[in-house]
Amino acid sequence: MPNGWTCSASDQDFGTAKRPRSVSGLIPLLSLFSARFLPQPMRPMARAPHLRLSIQAASGRRAGAQDLVHAVLAEQAAGRLPPGARMPPVRALEHQLGISKNTVQSAYDELCSRGVLEARSRAGVFVRQPDDYAPPQERDLRAPSPHLMSLAVDGQARLQSGETYLSAVFVDPELLPHKQLSDCIRSVLSLPGLPTFYDAQGYPPLRELIAARLCARGIRTSADEVLVTTGSQQALDVVSRALAPRCIAFENPIYRYARLLFEAHNLRLVPLDLDPFEPIDFDAWERDLSVNRPGLMYAITSFQNPTGHSYSTHELERLLDLARRLDFALLEDDWGSDMLSENDYRPSLRALGGENVLYVNSFTKKLLPSLRLGYVLCSHTAMPALLATKRLATLGNAALMEAALAEFLDRGYYDTHLGRIQRALDERYHACLDALEELMPEGVRWTTPGGGPILWLSVPESVNLQLLATRMAEQHIRIELMPQAFVGRPHLHGFPIGYAFYPPEHLRKALECLSKELRRA
Amino acid sequence: MPNGWTCSASDQDFGTAKRPRSVSGLIPLLSLFSARFLPQPMRPMARAPHLRLSIQAASGRRAGAQDLVHAVLAEQAAGRLPPGARMPPVRALEHQLGISKNTVQSAYDELCSRGVLEARSRAGVFVRQPDDYAPPQERDLRAPSPHLMSLAVDGQARLQSGETYLSAVFVDPELLPHKQLSDCIRSVLSLPGLPTFYDAQGYPPLRELIAARLCARGIRTSADEVLVTTGSQQALDVVSRALAPRCIAFENPIYRYARLLFEAHNLRLVPLDLDPFEPIDFDAWERDLSVNRPGLMYAITSFQNPTGHSYSTHELERLLDLARRLDFALLEDDWGSDMLSENDYRPSLRALGGENVLYVNSFTKKLLPSLRLGYVLCSHTAMPALLATKRLATLGNAALMEAALAEFLDRGYYDTHLGRIQRALDERYHACLDALEELMPEGVRWTTPGGGPILWLSVPESVNLQLLATRMAEQHIRIELMPQAFVGRPHLHGFPIGYAFYPPEHLRKALECLSKELRRA
Repeated sequence: MPNGWTCSASDQDFGTAKRPRSVSGLIPLLSLFSARFLPQPMRPMARAPHLRLSIQAASGRRAGAQDLVHAVLAEQAAGRLPPGARMPPVRALEHQLGISKNTVQSAYDELCSRGVLEARSRAGVFVRQPDDYAPPQERDLRAPSPHLMSLAVDGQARLQSGETYLSAVFVDPELLPHKQLSDCIRSVLSLPGLPTFYDAQGYPPLRELIAARLCARGIRTSADEVLVTTGSQQALDVVSRALAPRCIAFENPIYRYARLLFEAHNLRLVPLDLDPFEPIDFDAWERDLSVNRPGLMYAITSFQNPTGHSYSTHELERLLDLARRLDFALLEDDWGSDMLSENDYRPSLRALGGENVLYVNSFTKKLLPSLRLGYVLCSHTAMPALLATKRLATLGNAALMEAALAEFLDRGYYDTHLGRIQRALDERYHACLDALEELMPEGVRWTTPGGGPILWLSVPESVNLQLLATRMAEQHIRIELMPQAFVGRPHLHGFPIGYAFYPPEHLRKALECLSKELRRA
Repeated sequence: MPNGWTCSASDQDFGTAKRPRSVSGLIPLLSLFSARFLPQPMRPMARAPHLRLSIQAASGRRAGAQDLVHAVLAEQAAGRLPPGARMPPVRALEHQLGISKNTVQSAYDELCSRGVLEARSRAGVFVRQPDDYAPPQERDLRAPSPHLMSLAVDGQARLQSGETYLSAVFVDPELLPHKQLSDCIRSVLSLPGLPTFYDAQGYPPLRELIAARLCARGIRTSADEVLVTTGSQQALDVVSRALAPRCIAFENPIYRYARLLFEAHNLRLVPLDLDPFEPIDFDAWERDLSVNRPGLMYAITSFQNPTGHSYSTHELERLLDLARRLDFALLEDDWGSDMLSENDYRPSLRALGGENVLYVNSFTKKLLPSLRLGYVLCSHTAMPALLATKRLATLGNAALMEAALAEFLDRGYYDTHLGRIQRALDERYHACLDALEELMPEGVRWTTPGGGPILWLSVPESVNLQLLATRMAEQHIRIELMPQAFVGRPHLHGFPIGYAFYPPEHLRKALECLSKELRRA
């Protein structure tokens, strides 16, 4: 190889090494390794991929055009330049080898005139195909398919246009503060200080503000105890993963994505029957808990999803007493309580039971579903395990959203917004109760949560729920039967009604349809 | 109980039930259940929590003030009103029972004048403490501590002010498009169409745009095959969870949060030694893979973290050939390739090996770390398992960020931005190489990735790395030794240098210090 340039049999690439000077001495190395170019038919594609060449660069004198020419010729002689393959762009070689664009261009020019390469206008430089060229038989490079575990997890309903979703747990987007949020994000992006390095625990000023809000609700805590998560779902995920005793108790029925999550993590399930029309049967719960000895109980203490049930202070105390006697920890999900006017000062398991209670809440429903911001509160003892687990799951989450939410809280927008949303939901709640009272046939009953976005509608056993859902669907109204919310055979016969998503007159029309179908059934 | 009002022994709460009319008849029920109020000392706290009462409401005639008075008196007689506890606010009872504010107020007035309750200005209505009142002995309600598994996962370095982080993999925030992103978010928030219901797979227009970009890079795909994730970390998490054969191979050293994640998921590890200064030893890899038979290999094919190594097309092909013969699937992490100018058209495992290759990429480093947006590309066959797993982990992610990114791509901002960032990084890369060339003592060598934000600096075995790090730290320069990146005893002796985070003159000063310390060592 002239001029001190060589090709070696090494497979080194673009990402390559500088030999120590003592070893490489004054002889620079350049190796070009061609490889197969796959001329597959592509969908919209601007340009073909070029050959990715292994180039062994070294310090010392700069390469000249002749070095490059000879290196490419040697590659061709060794049969490593597939006809039709695109050569690296001039800029790429210039960049990698630290030589001038003109040097690369003149080498390519010479190789074109030698008939080794050909330049195609706007497309690049290609290895020339001889006239009698027949492409070699393609080696099959298709990778094996990964073996994955399948999970039966249905998606959230995607609404068809014109369809009414009677079981929606969401709040009407018309009630949400798009403009103010936009102002906060703009402000955050225009100021210095947005962190480049993630704080996996969450943006510190946001954690401060969350802790202050909780203190005002009778929960003694501080920013160190707050772990910000992607909605409350990630909080449940992180706790499920970190839990050492692989057995968990919960109310039955239960928020279905919690149940499916626990199952996916191979937690043993201890379902505790909840009938929102009856007092909690703590004796039955105690029997089940004594036998199964879970490490944790998951409880939605306000406006339980899907029943709308809330615990009284007395019930919270009985649960804490059970937890102490049977030594299980508590995971309290307080997703909906902010949606009730006058709810701020109601006690919670966390307020009564202290720092060991894992307390989960979220801004998702109340602020903007597309924010996906929630948090779990835990003791200093529990934080390292939960933080490490979250770090491995997603590192930090979107700090931009966290900073924007902090700004939103700090400006007092959230309190104003909560007040407005609570008034709107109060109105919708009462309108829903009035409509049910007026429209529902005998034998139908419903919970009266007093807040939150849903209540449970119980219908007579004689009603075929599946058939009812089908008939409602024919009228573009979707009700959500919740088989995955129950462990075992459902002991309740009904479904949730959401009153936060639609204006009262819209909901009323849907309930009129429901009433007709129920009378028909 | 006068006037048809009763207290029952039930523990029903605020979240309660309407009895069917046929049962409850004309007799409305109201039960008030008191519970213990915990007068703990609170940090900043506006008001004390009030009693959370169980109220059994029913349809029929409305309650009057006298009904309420008698119900409270009965509670008191039963010893269920702890002295000093705060009564539910007037609004709360008004709301729950559907009675007027005046009705509740006049009941409270009467109870105050009877000496049962007392009104405190601005604080609310409280159960009156008799003069000789002594608080009962507190029952201990503290919940047990959860038992959690601990993981040894260090955080990302948090920089002290004035400290230089020489191993940073991030891009200088000065180079990132804050203003344009802010415009996109504002636009997204001001237009209708932001989804209320999560698409757990990712905002569909964003998936379309990602697929189109990949097609232009020679990867045949469509929006159906894109799963949007929280950075690439969630993509790795989701794949690790769903993987059926619980054994994974990867280059050693490896991105440490990938290794720790695999360990946390109890995957058996098959580390394959990578020396960025030598060709890949595929024979050794084949021996290890034949013995251990992993279900999946994780490979960072461009600018490997932490070594800066990239595969040549030839190496990609050899890996695909191994995968076919030994029947393991491939998880390609292409985190950094966008950061190399002229990189768009280089082939990848996914381009060569087809749709079964799981392909991960992210916008985090290139666009804005605080966005945390990445994705995994998978076949139609693999999507249901990965989507179900992601849904359980976080449901959807922040759709607002996804929509803003879609807008950013659609306006062409991303291409302009990439061009700008590539030019800036090219300059920094070359300045870094120049500085190393000039400053480093003999025996030190480094990889020349040609792009990406980091290279690997190898120092002589005689240098005590821990001591070097300490001495550098004394000069406010942090280098990151990566014990967690290696499985087993490290076969490389060095650390990564990031050249994308600081302007050239800043980096050069840090490298001058490093040079001095290396000569001293």
